[in-house]
Amino acid sequence: MDYPNDQSPGAPVRSGIPEHGRVPKYYAVKTRLSTLIDELGEGQTLPTERDLSVRYEVSRETVRQALRDLLLEGRLRRMGRGTVVAGPKLEQPLSLASYTEGVRRQGLRPGRTLISLDRFPCPAGLADETGLTRGEPVWHLERVLLADDERVGLESTYVAVARVPDLDTDFDPDSSFYGYLHDRLGIGFGDADERLETVLATPREALLIGTPPALPMLLIHRVSRDVAGRPLERVRSLYRGDRFSFTTRLGGASAAGAPD
Amino acid sequence: MDYPNDQSPGAPVRSGIPEHGRVPKYYAVKTRLSTLIDELGEGQTLPTERDLSVRYEVSRETVRQALRDLLLEGRLRRMGRGTVVAGPKLEQPLSLASYTEGVRRQGLRPGRTLISLDRFPCPAGLADETGLTRGEPVWHLERVLLADDERVGLESTYVAVARVPDLDTDFDPDSSFYGYLHDRLGIGFGDADERLETVLATPREALLIGTPPALPMLLIHRVSRDVAGRPLERVRSLYRGDRFSFTTRLGGASAAGAPD
Repeated sequence: MDYPNDQSPGAPVRSGIPEHGRVPKYYAVKTRLSTLIDELGEGQTLPTERDLSVRYEVSRETVRQALRDLLLEGRLRRMGRGTVVAGPKLEQPLSLASYTEGVRRQGLRPGRTLISLDRFPCPAGLADETGLTRGEPVWHLERVLLADDERVGLESTYVAVARVPDLDTDFDPDSSFYGYLHDRLGIGFGDADERLETVLATPREALLIGTPPALPMLLIHRVSRDVAGRPLERVRSLYRGDRFSFTTRLGGASAAGAPD
Repeated sequence: MDYPNDQSPGAPVRSGIPEHGRVPKYYAVKTRLSTLIDELGEGQTLPTERDLSVRYEVSRETVRQALRDLLLEGRLRRMGRGTVVAGPKLEQPLSLASYTEGVRRQGLRPGRTLISLDRFPCPAGLADETGLTRGEPVWHLERVLLADDERVGLESTYVAVARVPDLDTDFDPDSSFYGYLHDRLGIGFGDADERLETVLATPREALLIGTPPALPMLLIHRVSRDVAGRPLERVRSLYRGDRFSFTTRLGGASAAGAPD
Protein backbone atom coordinates (compact mmCIF):
# COMPACT_ATOMS: atom_id res chain seq x y z
CA MET A 1 0.00 0.00 0.00
CA ASP A 2 1.14 3.50 -0.71
CA TYR A 3 1.49 5.84 2.19
CA PRO A 4 -1.09 8.55 1.65
CA ASN A 5 0.16 12.15 1.34
CA ASP A 6 3.54 11.33 2.81
CA GLN A 7 1.94 12.65 6.00
CA SER A 8 3.68 13.08 9.32
CA PRO A 9 3.51 10.07 11.65
CA GLY A 10 2.42 12.47 14.39
CA ALA A 11 -0.72 13.43 12.49
CA PRO A 12 -3.99 11.52 12.78
CA VAL A 13 -4.17 8.61 10.38
CA ARG A 14 -5.74 9.34 6.97
CA SER A 15 -6.52 12.89 7.99
CA GLY A 16 -9.24 11.61 10.27
CA ILE A 17 -11.71 10.58 7.62
CA PRO A 18 -14.19 7.98 8.87
CA GLU A 19 -14.12 4.74 6.95
CA HIS A 20 -17.80 4.18 7.51
CA GLY A 21 -20.15 7.08 7.58
CA ARG A 22 -19.75 10.53 6.11
CA VAL A 23 -17.18 13.17 6.91
CA PRO A 24 -18.90 15.94 8.87
CA LYS A 25 -18.99 19.12 6.79
CA TYR A 26 -17.17 21.19 9.42
CA TYR A 27 -14.42 18.59 9.49
CA ALA A 28 -13.90 18.76 5.73
CA VAL A 29 -13.53 22.54 6.14
CA LYS A 30 -11.13 21.99 9.05
CA THR A 31 -8.96 19.73 6.88
CA ARG A 32 -8.80 22.37 4.14
CA LEU A 33 -8.08 25.11 6.69
CA SER A 34 -5.33 22.96 8.10
CA THR A 35 -3.64 22.87 4.69
CA LEU A 36 -4.13 26.62 4.35
CA ILE A 37 -2.53 27.14 7.78
CA ASP A 38 0.54 25.16 6.71
CA GLU A 39 0.82 27.22 3.53
CA LEU A 40 0.45 30.57 5.32
CA GLY A 41 2.96 29.91 8.10
CA GLU A 42 3.29 31.27 11.65
CA GLY A 43 2.01 34.77 12.35
CA GLN A 44 0.08 35.16 9.09
CA THR A 45 -3.53 36.32 9.21
CA LEU A 46 -6.35 34.04 8.12
CA PRO A 47 -9.06 35.33 5.74
CA THR A 48 -12.28 36.40 7.49
CA GLU A 49 -15.08 33.97 8.34
CA ARG A 50 -17.11 35.56 5.59
CA ASP A 51 -14.38 35.08 2.96
CA LEU A 52 -13.83 31.51 4.08
CA SER A 53 -17.53 30.67 3.89
CA VAL A 54 -17.58 31.98 0.30
CA ARG A 55 -14.37 30.17 -0.62
CA TYR A 56 -15.51 26.79 0.78
CA GLU A 57 -19.20 27.25 -0.11
CA VAL A 58 -20.43 26.51 3.40
CA SER A 59 -22.31 28.49 6.05
CA ARG A 60 -20.45 30.83 8.38
CA GLU A 61 -21.53 28.61 11.30
CA THR A 62 -19.71 25.67 9.68
CA VAL A 63 -16.58 27.80 9.23
CA ARG A 64 -16.90 28.93 12.85
CA GLN A 65 -17.04 25.34 14.10
CA ALA A 66 -13.89 24.42 12.17
CA LEU A 67 -12.10 27.54 13.45
CA ARG A 68 -13.17 26.75 17.02
CA ASP A 69 -11.52 23.32 16.82
CA LEU A 70 -8.33 24.77 15.36
CA LEU A 71 -8.23 27.46 18.07
CA LEU A 72 -8.74 24.85 20.83
CA GLU A 73 -5.93 22.79 19.34
CA GLY A 74 -3.59 25.76 19.23
CA ARG A 75 -3.18 25.81 15.43
CA LEU A 76 -4.70 29.31 15.33
CA ARG A 77 -4.90 32.17 17.77
CA ARG A 78 -6.96 35.32 18.08
CA MET A 79 -5.05 38.54 17.68
CA GLY A 80 -7.11 41.69 18.06
CA ARG A 81 -10.03 41.19 15.71
CA GLY A 82 -8.19 38.78 13.44
CA THR A 83 -7.17 35.14 13.53
CA VAL A 84 -3.52 34.27 12.94
CA VAL A 85 -1.53 31.09 12.48
CA ALA A 86 -0.03 30.03 15.82
CA GLY A 87 3.50 28.79 16.39
CA PRO A 88 4.23 25.27 17.62
CA LYS A 89 3.28 24.35 21.19
CA LEU A 90 5.87 25.05 23.85
CA GLU A 91 7.69 21.92 24.97
CA GLN A 92 8.17 21.75 28.71
CA PRO A 93 10.36 18.95 30.08
CA LEU A 94 8.82 16.76 32.78
CA SER A 95 11.59 17.17 35.32
CA LEU A 96 12.35 18.72 38.66
CA ALA A 97 13.61 21.78 36.85
CA SER A 98 11.41 24.80 37.36
CA TYR A 99 8.92 26.44 35.04
CA THR A 100 11.41 29.31 34.72
CA GLU A 101 14.10 27.06 33.39
CA GLY A 102 11.82 25.22 30.94
CA VAL A 103 10.49 28.42 29.42
CA ARG A 104 13.92 30.07 29.19
CA ARG A 105 15.28 27.04 27.40
CA GLN A 106 12.89 27.89 24.56
CA GLY A 107 14.05 31.44 24.33
CA LEU A 108 11.00 32.93 26.04
CA ARG A 109 10.84 35.21 29.06
CA PRO A 110 9.10 33.52 32.02
CA GLY A 111 6.97 35.58 34.39
CA ARG A 112 4.38 35.18 37.11
CA THR A 113 1.53 37.24 38.49
CA LEU A 114 0.53 36.75 42.10
CA ILE A 115 -3.16 35.95 42.54
CA SER A 116 -3.13 35.13 46.24
CA LEU A 117 -0.98 34.06 49.15
CA ASP A 118 -3.02 32.53 51.97
CA ARG A 119 -2.10 30.84 55.21
CA PHE A 120 -4.39 28.20 56.75
CA PRO A 121 -4.37 24.97 58.78
CA CYS A 122 -3.38 21.94 56.70
CA PRO A 123 -6.61 20.19 55.63
CA ALA A 124 -7.02 16.40 55.75
CA GLY A 125 -6.64 15.86 52.00
CA LEU A 126 -3.37 17.74 51.82
CA ALA A 127 -2.03 15.96 54.91
CA ASP A 128 -2.86 12.56 53.38
CA GLU A 129 -1.17 13.40 50.11
CA THR A 130 2.00 14.97 51.43
CA GLY A 131 2.69 13.57 54.88
CA LEU A 132 2.29 17.00 56.50
CA THR A 133 0.46 17.12 59.84
CA ARG A 134 -3.23 17.93 59.74
CA GLY A 135 -3.78 21.38 61.18
CA GLU A 136 -0.20 22.64 60.89
CA PRO A 137 0.00 26.03 59.16
CA VAL A 138 0.51 25.88 55.38
CA TRP A 139 0.86 28.48 52.67
CA HIS A 140 -1.16 28.46 49.50
CA LEU A 141 0.58 30.46 46.80
CA GLU A 142 -1.43 30.95 43.62
CA ARG A 143 0.18 32.51 40.54
CA VAL A 144 -0.61 32.96 36.87
CA LEU A 145 2.26 31.73 34.69
CA LEU A 146 3.45 33.93 31.83
CA ALA A 147 5.62 33.32 28.79
CA ASP A 148 6.67 36.53 27.03
CA ASP A 149 3.82 38.30 28.89
CA GLU A 150 1.22 35.89 27.57
CA ARG A 151 -0.81 34.11 30.25
CA VAL A 152 -0.27 30.39 29.74
CA GLY A 153 -1.03 28.68 33.04
CA LEU A 154 -2.05 28.79 36.68
CA GLU A 155 -0.12 27.29 39.55
CA SER A 156 -1.16 26.51 43.14
CA THR A 157 1.67 25.65 45.51
CA TYR A 158 1.02 24.30 49.02
CA VAL A 159 3.97 24.30 51.40
CA ALA A 160 4.36 24.12 55.19
CA VAL A 161 4.85 27.50 56.89
CA ALA A 162 7.52 25.84 59.07
CA ARG A 163 9.56 25.32 55.91
CA VAL A 164 9.28 28.84 54.51
CA PRO A 165 8.19 31.02 57.45
CA ASP A 166 8.86 34.33 55.68
CA LEU A 167 7.28 33.53 52.34
CA ASP A 168 4.94 36.51 52.65
CA THR A 169 7.70 39.07 53.22
CA ASP A 170 10.87 37.54 51.85
CA PHE A 171 9.85 36.15 48.48
CA ASP A 172 9.31 38.00 45.20
CA PRO A 173 6.21 36.33 43.70
CA ASP A 174 7.44 37.08 40.17
CA SER A 175 10.51 34.92 40.76
CA SER A 176 11.15 31.17 40.84
CA PHE A 177 9.94 29.48 44.04
CA TYR A 178 12.47 26.70 43.45
CA GLY A 179 15.21 29.28 43.14
CA TYR A 180 14.07 30.78 46.45
CA LEU A 181 14.08 27.38 48.19
CA HIS A 182 17.49 26.53 46.86
CA ASP A 183 19.43 29.79 46.89
CA ARG A 184 17.91 31.37 49.97
CA LEU A 185 17.06 28.44 52.21
CA GLY A 186 19.43 25.77 50.93
CA ILE A 187 16.55 23.33 50.36
CA GLY A 188 17.22 20.80 47.58
CA PHE A 189 14.68 18.64 45.82
CA GLY A 190 14.91 14.89 46.32
CA ASP A 191 12.15 13.40 44.24
CA ALA A 192 8.55 13.96 43.21
CA ASP A 193 5.51 12.04 42.05
CA GLU A 194 3.62 13.58 39.18
CA ARG A 195 0.27 12.81 37.61
CA LEU A 196 -0.87 14.36 34.33
CA GLU A 197 -4.40 14.58 33.05
CA THR A 198 -6.53 16.70 30.77
CA VAL A 199 -9.35 18.78 32.29
CA LEU A 200 -11.58 21.63 31.20
CA ALA A 201 -10.81 25.10 32.57
CA THR A 202 -13.32 26.28 35.17
CA PRO A 203 -14.86 29.75 34.61
CA ARG A 204 -12.56 31.21 37.30
CA GLU A 205 -9.49 29.62 35.73
CA ALA A 206 -10.51 30.71 32.24
CA LEU A 207 -10.92 34.25 33.57
CA LEU A 208 -7.52 34.24 35.28
CA ILE A 209 -5.67 32.73 32.34
CA GLY A 210 -7.70 34.62 29.76
CA THR A 211 -8.76 31.54 27.79
CA PRO A 212 -12.12 30.60 26.36
CA PRO A 213 -14.05 28.60 28.98
CA ALA A 214 -13.92 24.84 28.52
CA LEU A 215 -10.53 24.98 26.78
CA PRO A 216 -8.85 21.60 27.32
CA MET A 217 -6.00 22.11 29.79
CA LEU A 218 -3.11 19.93 30.88
CA LEU A 219 -3.15 19.51 34.65
CA ILE A 220 -0.06 18.31 36.49
CA HIS A 221 -0.27 17.24 40.12
CA ARG A 222 3.07 17.15 41.90
CA VAL A 223 3.99 15.96 45.39
CA SER A 224 7.67 16.51 46.10
CA ARG A 225 10.11 15.67 48.86
CA ASP A 226 13.48 17.12 49.84
CA VAL A 227 16.78 15.27 49.66
CA ALA A 228 16.11 13.80 53.11
CA GLY A 229 12.74 12.46 51.92
CA ARG A 230 10.69 14.91 53.98
CA PRO A 231 7.52 16.38 52.42
CA LEU A 232 8.20 19.61 50.58
CA GLU A 233 5.33 20.86 48.43
CA ARG A 234 2.10 19.92 46.70
CA VAL A 235 1.61 21.69 43.39
CA ARG A 236 -1.35 21.87 41.04
CA SER A 237 -0.18 23.28 37.70
CA LEU A 238 -2.64 24.01 34.96
CA TYR A 239 -1.27 24.70 31.47
CA ARG A 240 -3.13 25.83 28.36
CA GLY A 241 -3.60 22.70 26.25
CA ASP A 242 -3.32 24.76 23.07
CA ARG A 243 0.08 26.17 24.08
CA PHE A 244 1.93 23.40 25.91
CA SER A 245 3.23 19.90 25.43
CA PHE A 246 5.42 17.96 27.83
CA THR A 247 8.46 15.90 27.02
CA THR A 248 10.30 13.15 28.82
CA ARG A 249 13.17 10.78 28.16
CA LEU A 250 12.45 7.23 29.25
CA GLY A 251 15.27 4.94 29.67
CA GLY A 252 17.62 2.49 30.89
CA ALA A 253 17.18 0.10 33.71
CA SER A 254 13.49 -0.70 33.55
CA ALA A 255 13.64 -1.05 29.80
CA ALA A 256 15.37 -4.20 28.74
CA GLY A 257 14.02 -6.09 31.71
CA ALA A 258 10.33 -6.23 31.80
CA PRO A 259 8.24 -5.54 28.75
CA ASP A 260 5.50 -8.15 28.72
CA MET B 1 -7.63 32.80 56.46
CA ASP B 2 -9.73 29.69 56.80
CA TYR B 3 -9.38 27.07 54.15
CA PRO B 4 -12.73 26.85 52.41
CA ASN B 5 -14.56 23.53 52.47
CA ASP B 6 -11.47 21.59 53.47
CA GLN B 7 -11.30 20.87 49.75
CA SER B 8 -8.77 18.62 48.05
CA PRO B 9 -5.60 20.34 46.85
CA GLY B 10 -6.11 18.60 43.51
CA ALA B 11 -9.43 20.37 42.96
CA PRO B 12 -9.72 23.78 41.31
CA VAL B 13 -9.34 26.61 43.78
CA ARG B 14 -12.60 27.90 45.36
CA SER B 15 -14.64 25.54 43.24
CA GLY B 16 -13.91 27.65 40.21
CA ILE B 17 -16.03 30.64 41.10
CA PRO B 18 -14.90 33.82 39.32
CA GLU B 19 -13.88 36.63 41.64
CA HIS B 20 -15.10 39.22 39.22
CA GLY B 21 -18.15 38.59 37.14
CA ARG B 22 -20.98 36.16 37.68
CA VAL B 23 -20.88 32.41 37.92
CA PRO B 24 -22.42 30.99 34.75
CA LYS B 25 -25.69 29.23 35.55
CA TYR B 26 -24.58 25.91 34.04
CA TYR B 27 -21.46 26.04 36.19
CA ALA B 28 -23.46 26.48 39.39
CA VAL B 29 -25.44 23.38 38.37
CA LYS B 30 -22.20 21.56 37.61
CA THR B 31 -20.88 22.33 41.10
CA ARG B 32 -24.06 20.97 42.69
CA LEU B 33 -23.99 17.89 40.46
CA SER B 34 -20.39 17.37 41.43
CA THR B 35 -21.41 17.16 45.10
CA LEU B 36 -24.28 14.82 44.19
CA ILE B 37 -21.81 12.59 42.29
CA ASP B 38 -19.59 12.34 45.37
CA GLU B 39 -22.59 11.43 47.52
CA LEU B 40 -23.89 8.81 45.10
CA GLY B 41 -20.59 7.02 44.51
CA GLU B 42 -19.25 4.94 41.60
CA GLY B 43 -21.74 3.03 39.48
CA GLN B 44 -24.85 4.76 40.85
CA THR B 45 -27.38 6.19 38.40
CA LEU B 46 -28.00 9.92 38.17
CA PRO B 47 -31.57 11.29 38.14
CA THR B 48 -32.92 12.13 34.67
CA GLU B 49 -32.30 15.50 32.99
CA ARG B 50 -35.92 16.29 33.59
CA ASP B 51 -35.74 15.55 37.33
CA LEU B 52 -32.52 17.54 37.64
CA SER B 53 -33.99 20.56 35.87
CA VAL B 54 -36.92 20.51 38.31
CA ARG B 55 -34.65 20.01 41.31
CA TYR B 56 -32.27 22.85 40.38
CA GLU B 57 -34.96 25.10 38.86
CA VAL B 58 -33.10 25.55 35.58
CA SER B 59 -33.81 24.66 31.94
CA ARG B 60 -33.02 21.21 30.61
CA GLU B 61 -30.47 22.81 28.27
CA THR B 62 -28.59 24.18 31.30
CA VAL B 63 -28.61 20.74 32.92
CA ARG B 64 -27.41 19.24 29.64
CA GLN B 65 -24.47 21.65 29.45
CA ALA B 66 -23.38 20.78 32.99
CA LEU B 67 -23.73 17.04 32.26
CA ARG B 68 -21.71 17.43 29.04
CA ASP B 69 -18.78 18.93 30.98
CA LEU B 70 -18.92 16.19 33.61
CA LEU B 71 -19.04 13.52 30.89
CA LEU B 72 -16.04 15.08 29.07
CA GLU B 73 -14.14 15.14 32.35
CA GLY B 74 -14.92 11.51 33.07
CA ARG B 75 -16.91 12.13 36.26
CA LEU B 76 -19.97 10.57 34.62
CA ARG B 77 -20.49 8.00 31.91
CA ARG B 78 -23.37 6.94 29.72
CA MET B 79 -24.70 3.46 30.35
CA GLY B 80 -27.53 2.40 28.10
CA ARG B 81 -30.06 5.19 28.36
CA GLY B 82 -28.89 6.33 31.78
CA THR B 83 -26.00 8.32 33.18
CA VAL B 84 -23.92 6.77 35.95
CA VAL B 85 -21.12 7.93 38.23
CA ALA B 86 -17.75 6.94 36.73
CA GLY B 87 -14.83 5.46 38.63
CA PRO B 88 -11.50 7.26 38.95
CA LYS B 89 -9.34 7.69 35.84
CA LEU B 90 -6.91 4.87 35.09
CA GLU B 91 -3.35 5.73 36.02
CA GLN B 92 -0.84 4.64 33.43
CA PRO B 93 2.85 4.98 34.29
CA LEU B 94 5.02 6.89 31.84
CA SER B 95 7.64 4.21 31.36
CA LEU B 96 8.96 1.80 28.80
CA ALA B 97 6.62 -0.80 30.21
CA SER B 98 3.86 -1.76 27.79
CA TYR B 99 0.20 -0.79 27.78
CA THR B 100 -0.53 -4.40 28.75
CA GLU B 101 1.52 -4.13 31.89
CA GLY B 102 0.10 -0.75 32.94
CA VAL B 103 -3.49 -1.88 32.58
CA ARG B 104 -2.92 -5.22 34.34
CA ARG B 105 -1.32 -3.45 37.26
CA GLN B 106 -4.71 -1.85 37.88
CA GLY B 107 -6.53 -5.14 37.85
CA LEU B 108 -8.06 -4.69 34.41
CA ARG B 109 -7.84 -6.97 31.39
CA PRO B 110 -5.95 -5.36 28.49
CA GLY B 111 -6.98 -6.09 24.93
CA ARG B 112 -6.47 -4.80 21.40
CA THR B 113 -8.44 -4.83 18.18
CA LEU B 114 -6.58 -4.70 14.90
CA ILE B 115 -7.69 -1.87 12.63
CA SER B 116 -5.03 -2.18 9.95
CA LEU B 117 -1.57 -3.48 9.19
CA ASP B 118 -0.01 -1.74 6.19
CA ARG B 119 3.41 -1.87 4.61
CA PHE B 120 4.81 1.14 2.73
CA PRO B 121 8.06 3.00 1.95
CA CYS B 122 9.29 5.11 4.87
CA PRO B 123 8.12 8.71 4.29
CA ALA B 124 10.40 11.71 4.88
CA GLY B 125 8.78 12.78 8.16
CA LEU B 126 9.14 9.35 9.71
CA ALA B 127 12.75 9.04 8.51
CA ASP B 128 13.61 12.43 10.06
CA GLU B 129 12.05 11.53 13.38
CA THR B 130 13.42 8.04 13.78
CA GLY B 131 16.64 7.79 11.82
CA LEU B 132 15.21 5.13 9.50
CA THR B 133 16.11 5.39 5.81
CA ARG B 134 13.66 7.18 3.57
CA GLY B 135 12.02 4.65 1.29
CA GLU B 136 12.87 1.55 3.27
CA PRO B 137 9.82 -0.65 3.90
CA VAL B 138 8.01 0.03 7.18
CA TRP B 139 4.95 -1.45 8.86
CA HIS B 140 2.12 0.65 10.19
CA LEU B 141 0.17 -1.28 12.81
CA GLU B 142 -3.00 0.41 14.02
CA ARG B 143 -4.95 -0.99 16.96
CA VAL B 144 -7.75 0.06 19.25
CA LEU B 145 -6.76 -0.34 22.91
CA LEU B 146 -9.20 -2.01 25.29
CA ALA B 147 -9.47 -2.21 29.07
CA ASP B 148 -12.00 -4.80 30.26
CA ASP B 149 -13.50 -4.73 26.73
CA GLU B 150 -14.06 -0.97 26.85
CA ARG B 151 -12.41 0.97 24.02
CA VAL B 152 -10.05 3.47 25.64
CA GLY B 153 -7.45 4.40 23.04
CA LEU B 154 -5.96 4.07 19.59
CA GLU B 155 -2.35 3.24 18.84
CA SER B 156 -0.33 3.61 15.63
CA THR B 157 3.04 1.86 15.60
CA TYR B 158 5.59 2.43 12.83
CA VAL B 159 8.47 -0.06 12.67
CA ALA B 160 10.97 -1.09 9.98
CA VAL B 161 10.05 -4.26 8.11
CA ALA B 162 13.73 -5.28 8.34
CA ARG B 163 13.28 -5.45 12.13
CA VAL B 164 10.09 -7.50 12.18
CA PRO B 165 9.84 -9.10 8.73
CA ASP B 166 7.06 -11.53 9.69
CA LEU B 167 4.83 -9.13 11.59
CA ASP B 168 1.93 -9.90 9.27
CA THR B 169 2.03 -13.66 9.78
CA ASP B 170 3.85 -14.23 13.06
CA PHE B 171 2.26 -11.74 15.44
CA ASP B 172 -1.08 -11.96 17.23
CA PRO B 173 -2.46 -8.40 17.02
CA ASP B 174 -4.36 -8.88 20.29
CA SER B 175 -1.07 -9.41 22.13
CA SER B 176 1.69 -7.08 23.35
CA PHE B 177 3.99 -5.83 20.57
CA TYR B 178 6.72 -5.28 23.16
CA GLY B 179 6.29 -8.84 24.37
CA TYR B 180 6.65 -10.01 20.76
CA LEU B 181 9.83 -7.97 20.22
CA HIS B 182 11.35 -9.20 23.45
CA ASP B 183 10.27 -12.81 23.73
CA ARG B 184 10.26 -13.76 20.07
CA LEU B 185 12.98 -11.61 18.56
CA GLY B 186 15.17 -10.85 21.56
CA ILE B 187 14.93 -7.10 20.97
CA GLY B 188 15.28 -5.00 24.12
CA PHE B 189 14.34 -1.38 24.56
CA GLY B 190 17.14 1.08 25.23
CA ASP B 191 15.47 4.44 25.62
CA ALA B 192 12.69 6.58 24.21
CA ASP B 193 11.69 10.20 23.83
CA GLU B 194 8.08 10.98 24.63
CA ARG B 195 5.95 14.04 24.10
CA LEU B 196 2.48 14.44 25.62
CA GLU B 197 -0.21 16.84 24.54
CA THR B 198 -3.97 17.20 24.57
CA VAL B 199 -5.84 17.10 21.26
CA LEU B 200 -9.43 16.71 20.11
CA ALA B 201 -10.45 13.36 18.65
CA THR B 202 -10.98 13.46 14.89
CA PRO B 203 -14.29 12.05 13.61
CA ARG B 204 -12.50 8.88 12.48
CA GLU B 205 -10.82 8.45 15.85
CA ALA B 206 -14.05 9.14 17.73
CA LEU B 207 -15.76 6.49 15.58
CA LEU B 208 -13.02 3.91 16.20
CA ILE B 209 -12.82 4.55 19.94
CA GLY B 210 -16.55 5.09 20.33
CA THR B 211 -16.26 8.50 21.98
CA PRO B 212 -18.20 11.68 21.39
CA PRO B 213 -16.40 13.75 18.70
CA ALA B 214 -14.19 16.52 20.08
CA LEU B 215 -13.58 14.67 23.37
CA PRO B 216 -10.24 15.94 24.72
CA MET B 217 -7.70 13.15 24.33
CA LEU B 218 -4.20 12.64 25.67
CA LEU B 219 -1.79 12.05 22.80
CA ILE B 220 1.62 10.51 23.43
CA HIS B 221 4.29 10.55 20.75
CA ARG B 222 7.09 8.05 21.31
CA VAL B 223 10.33 7.49 19.40
CA SER B 224 12.27 4.56 20.83
CA ARG B 225 15.63 2.96 20.29
CA ASP B 226 16.98 -0.49 21.10
CA VAL B 227 19.78 -1.23 23.59
CA ALA B 228 22.36 -0.54 20.87
CA GLY B 229 20.80 2.87 20.18
CA ARG B 230 19.35 1.91 16.81
CA PRO B 231 15.89 3.24 15.86
CA LEU B 232 13.14 0.89 16.89
CA GLU B 233 9.64 2.31 16.60
CA ARG B 234 7.59 5.48 16.31
CA VAL B 235 4.30 5.30 18.20
CA ARG B 236 1.32 7.63 18.27
CA SER B 237 -0.91 6.67 21.22
CA LEU B 238 -4.19 8.37 21.77
CA TYR B 239 -5.95 7.84 25.10
CA ARG B 240 -9.41 8.95 26.19
CA GLY B 241 -8.88 12.05 28.32
CA ASP B 242 -11.87 11.15 30.46
CA ARG B 243 -10.47 7.69 31.31
CA PHE B 244 -6.70 8.10 31.61
CA SER B 245 -4.09 9.94 33.59
CA PHE B 246 -0.35 9.39 33.44
CA THR B 247 2.06 9.15 36.34
CA THR B 248 5.79 9.54 36.65
CA ARG B 249 8.40 9.60 39.39
CA LEU B 250 10.91 12.41 38.98
CA GLY B 251 14.06 12.13 40.84
CA GLY B 252 17.55 12.17 41.81
CA ALA B 253 20.45 13.48 39.88
CA SER B 254 18.99 16.48 38.10
CA ALA B 255 17.12 17.50 41.21
CA ALA B 256 19.42 18.91 43.82
CA GLY B 257 21.64 20.40 41.16
CA ALA B 258 19.89 22.81 39.00
CA PRO B 259 16.65 24.42 40.07
CA ASP B 260 16.86 28.06 39.17
